[in-house]
Amino acid sequence: MYKHLNSIQSPSDIKKMNPEELKELSGEIRKFLIEKVSKTGGHLASNLGIVEITLALHYCFNTPEDKFVWDVGHQSYVHKMITGRRDGFDCLRQYDGLAGFPKRCESEHDAFDVGHSSTSISAALGMAVARDLEKKNNSVVAIIGDGALTGGMAFEALNHLGHVKSDMIVILNDNAMSISKNVGSLSNYLYKLRTHKVYNTFKGEVQGIIRSIPKIGGKVYKTALRVRDGMKYFMLPGIFFEEMGIKYFGPVDGHDIEELTKLFESVKGIKGPVLIHAITKKGKGYAHAENHPDKYHGVGSFDIEKGVQPSAARTYSDVAGEKLLQMARQDKRIVAITAAMPDGTGMRKFRDELPRRFFDVGIAEGHAVTFCAGLAAGGHRPFFPVYSTFLQRGFDQIIHDVAMQKLPVTFMLDRAGIVGNDGETHHGVYDLSYLGLVPNIVTMAPMDGLELEQMLEFSMTVNMPVAIRYPRGNASAAAVSRSELRLGRWDVIKHGEEIAIVGIGKGVEIALEASELLKNKGMKPAVINARFLSPMDMEYISSIAVKFKHIFTIEDNVLSGGFGSKLKCMLSDLIPELRITNIALPDKFIEHGNTEILLHKYGLDAQSVSDRISGCMPGSQTGKDM
Amino acid sequence: MYKHLNSIQSPSDIKKMNPEELKELSGEIRKFLIEKVSKTGGHLASNLGIVEITLALHYCFNTPEDKFVWDVGHQSYVHKMITGRRDGFDCLRQYDGLAGFPKRCESEHDAFDVGHSSTSISAALGMAVARDLEKKNNSVVAIIGDGALTGGMAFEALNHLGHVKSDMIVILNDNAMSISKNVGSLSNYLYKLRTHKVYNTFKGEVQGIIRSIPKIGGKVYKTALRVRDGMKYFMLPGIFFEEMGIKYFGPVDGHDIEELTKLFESVKGIKGPVLIHAITKKGKGYAHAENHPDKYHGVGSFDIEKGVQPSAARTYSDVAGEKLLQMARQDKRIVAITAAMPDGTGMRKFRDELPRRFFDVGIAEGHAVTFCAGLAAGGHRPFFPVYSTFLQRGFDQIIHDVAMQKLPVTFMLDRAGIVGNDGETHHGVYDLSYLGLVPNIVTMAPMDGLELEQMLEFSMTVNMPVAIRYPRGNASAAAVSRSELRLGRWDVIKHGEEIAIVGIGKGVEIALEASELLKNKGMKPAVINARFLSPMDMEYISSIAVKFKHIFTIEDNVLSGGFGSKLKCMLSDLIPELRITNIALPDKFIEHGNTEILLHKYGLDAQSVSDRISGCMPGSQTGKDM
Repeated sequence: MYKHLNSIQSPSDIKKMNPEELKELSGEIRKFLIEKVSKTGGHLASNLGIVEITLALHYCFNTPEDKFVWDVGHQSYVHKMITGRRDGFDCLRQYDGLAGFPKRCESEHDAFDVGHSSTSISAALGMAVARDLEKKNNSVVAIIGDGALTGGMAFEALNHLGHVKSDMIVILNDNAMSISKNVGSLSNYLYKLRTHKVYNTFKGEVQGIIRSIPKIGGKVYKTALRVRDGMKYFMLPGIFFEEMGIKYFGPVDGHDIEELTKLFESVKGIKGPVLIHAITKKGKGYAHAENHPDKYHGVGSFDIEKGVQPSAARTYSDVAGEKLLQMARQDKRIVAITAAMPDGTGMRKFRDELPRRFFDVGIAEGHAVTFCAGLAAGGHRPFFPVYSTFLQRGFDQIIHDVAMQKLPVTFMLDRAGIVGNDGETHHGVYDLSYLGLVPNIVTMAPMDGLELEQMLEFSMTVNMPVAIRYPRGNASAAAVSRSELRLGRWDVIKHGEEIAIVGIGKGVEIALEASELLKNKGMKPAVINARFLSPMDMEYISSIAVKFKHIFTIEDNVLSGGFGSKLKCMLSDLIPELRITNIALPDKFIEHGNTEILLHKYGLDAQSVSDRISGCMPGSQTGKDM
Repeated sequence: MYKHLNSIQSPSDIKKMNPEELKELSGEIRKFLIEKVSKTGGHLASNLGIVEITLALHYCFNTPEDKFVWDVGHQSYVHKMITGRRDGFDCLRQYDGLAGFPKRCESEHDAFDVGHSSTSISAALGMAVARDLEKKNNSVVAIIGDGALTGGMAFEALNHLGHVKSDMIVILNDNAMSISKNVGSLSNYLYKLRTHKVYNTFKGEVQGIIRSIPKIGGKVYKTALRVRDGMKYFMLPGIFFEEMGIKYFGPVDGHDIEELTKLFESVKGIKGPVLIHAITKKGKGYAHAENHPDKYHGVGSFDIEKGVQPSAARTYSDVAGEKLLQMARQDKRIVAITAAMPDGTGMRKFRDELPRRFFDVGIAEGHAVTFCAGLAAGGHRPFFPVYSTFLQRGFDQIIHDVAMQKLPVTFMLDRAGIVGNDGETHHGVYDLSYLGLVPNIVTMAPMDGLELEQMLEFSMTVNMPVAIRYPRGNASAAAVSRSELRLGRWDVIKHGEEIAIVGIGKGVEIALEASELLKNKGMKPAVINARFLSPMDMEYISSIAVKFKHIFTIEDNVLSGGFGSKLKCMLSDLIPELRITNIALPDKFIEHGNTEILLHKYGLDAQSVSDRISGCMPGSQTGKDM
């Protein structure tokens, strides 16, 4: 079935193939990708788009001596396939299975771990400079999408690269998309380059020159330079990069493997930094994905014939997007901001209905936060839905531009806690800690979708910065009675004796389930929804806490600096005789895998929690904390 | 003495002045600046450089309706002077006195609080968009230096600005300096623009056209456009900005007030974003500062005649820089990175002696961190000295690019804790919290200069990420015996009974002083140097802690998520009967002022600590915690 693909044991096998075989291999790889990802889920469209570039890279360069740094890294599947990990695709992104992103621990061909955007040029430049210091001569290649190029640190790195002038190749994989359609003036600029008429003359005129380049040998450098000079008229469009001291080649058809290999060979010997602008089609070769590349960026399992079907389930992102739109219809001050994630954060309807009040700033979380601050200083009420892990990029701006001036910006942290298969780079397990240390922010986590709606409304009533963090997945609806939301106060949702389980966010759901299990053991713990990380109304809280002997906190955040640790520090001063045990994720990086498996592994499923609580009781066999 | 300056009560008084008077006023302002700052200390060179731009801005625009956003904001003194705050300069940057940066709480003419670099375009764009939504027509101006332009978020903002095309003016104040000499390919590019021959023809040819523009009236817009078109040949150099969708005007002499006012008037009515490239001289008008603008960026008090004299005292920065250089001489793997602060971080000698192993990446902390990660992945040992408050910009990169891969990068966090007169934007009081939540980082704080040296050496022995945080100011030398540095372990430097005071970093110095005061009250507390925030060797630590009844922790970091809270959470599980009280900075933004005053105000001077400890003792009058 996979005639060529099955014969590839290592990248060196690629080098033995002729152009025709490489084309056939591309087709096989696409078929393999669609077949495997339709079963396991994963990143599809970006990998379909980068097949030829990956093959051409391995054809022209020699990993692991040469270094490839994949930006974000979700497009590394093809690279993984031909570096000995093809068999792993049956367990792609599953617990203990192949990771969805490059991992140095997985293969010597993975030069750098990634997951967040716009890091590749920085990391590659570090490797290039290290090579220069060691007087080695391997190649270093950063492969970055046009979306990732809008991230400020990519620009910082280009600025530095053009200054130190190390030999390094940047491949700009331009598919006009981030996860959604790309925005920003740079994107317009690239569009101009793409549609520039010289592109069409490229094949005719320039290919001839490139064809004349000998594949190897001492003269390559000079020849390549000559080619480049011959192409000068054609490079003028790249003046943005040229002015930064980086030689621009392109645009080139990113699906023409012959053209790519020739261009890669020709730039290899060039001194100083080079940028190759390759035009690709996201989702290439699978009609569903070509037509809706955003829908096929990251997918669950699906039927190849029918494609991804809409899900009936209502996620937290859906709830957030719909509620915010409702609120915005009523209050003209409300505006929404996204950092290139209108779909992932459930904001598509908002964008379509209120386009003038919706701002996609590109993959630029730092700017997004301060842009929100400016909007708030201008009298508006900005809401910024963003994945928890990506808001780490705006940490300084949260402190410096929003919290310090107490500006009413609301951060909606989607994908908080364990996110599952994307793994360690994507889990949102630090936010309660990094928000908890910032003064002046009201930080909340809802126990279900209904409470998320209430918290969004509540955020309009406090004239200061607000953060609301909620998990990935379907918005559960807890069948409990609930009290009105009041600043810094707990909600006792289940009365009990001696023991209280205080959950925050998803922790409440776990607490409720654990309390059922404990009931079977004859215990009757109270269950409390903490709602607030900060502020904590300690007078109110201690009036409740004083009724118990032992409090257990539950959160899907790391232990250090999290909700439990914050509560324990404050409460133990007020009620010294109260025992407080924090149940949280350990202070380590959490691997990829199914969320349930991971919660169980780290003691955060209902059974583990209930065992831990009953194990702490005086009558129990162990009678002590873990 | 200040004939014109004394007559200025508000910006409207500027508008009444003729060009000659404005020039005389510029001279008076410079004199005033030098006289005042020589007494109080403050930012001098940047303010001397921006006198004419500030006057021209207030001449052409109307604050507070029009909005000025000063990037970083240390160059806002002239703006403060002419917006009713001249009298405040006698208490500039002192506790309860005029702030050294724009503050919305200080004046309606300050549109946005700043202190960190590269935020102005983002914030201004937010205000411009807010204005558009309200259908108002005020102007919004961001004033940004060429150094700050190397920060990635400035690029993110330009990319967004060129896309939304709001009416907004960016003034690029190009003095070829960050705090030190500016670097990066953008800097080279600006240099090309500056020295481009058309600059010299500007006055002759283009001034004539600009002169023909009527000052006000409906035709301004069209005329301005015509002027711009007439200047097209001249704008070609600005193609970098033009390609981003931003109209470029310049370069213009930033000290020619007539030229500036005419240009500002002419661009006022232009639709869409405009960038004005103004060339200025940092330190202009004070020979000492013109010759050594880096030395006069931020200064203490000095003699106007003699200028700033070298200090004999040895600061933590000096110790760090000298020790690292020593180590680098022995170990070729060591490289040093700075984000535009070679002087402030004590790295000048390193740069001069080992220039090939020293990298100034510009004001680009995010890139700096990941560049370090790349260097470490390439087998080197990068050390990144950086101010604690600025490393907040690299928070995500610390987690994602360094800690996750356990790469041996050493962060040297200078200016940790209270920094004094720079105030709330600059205090390094969050680092123990934001580093404490990151897995895989060994985080230390030395009690004195000698221990800083030991910790730098120690960082080479652990093959993983390391952070060392140390305060601003002179490296004290504690006269105590000390044990060998061992991972995660405490050092008992003074034996005692019942009570132990556990300090970290500067906290040890405070603990030692407080213990002396307590001795006078008949108490004999032990004093312990914690050394490590993480990891904590809990077996070892609890073997010491178990000997005491009450432990007090001391740190110059906020309470939430800090050292004390981390220790308390872990230790209270192991020794439930032990009382632990955390003494730290409150969870709020700390204002500017002398460090001693602030430490006293927040209960972190020796006297306050000793009072608090003795007040907690059973025999004391209060007998309970604060």
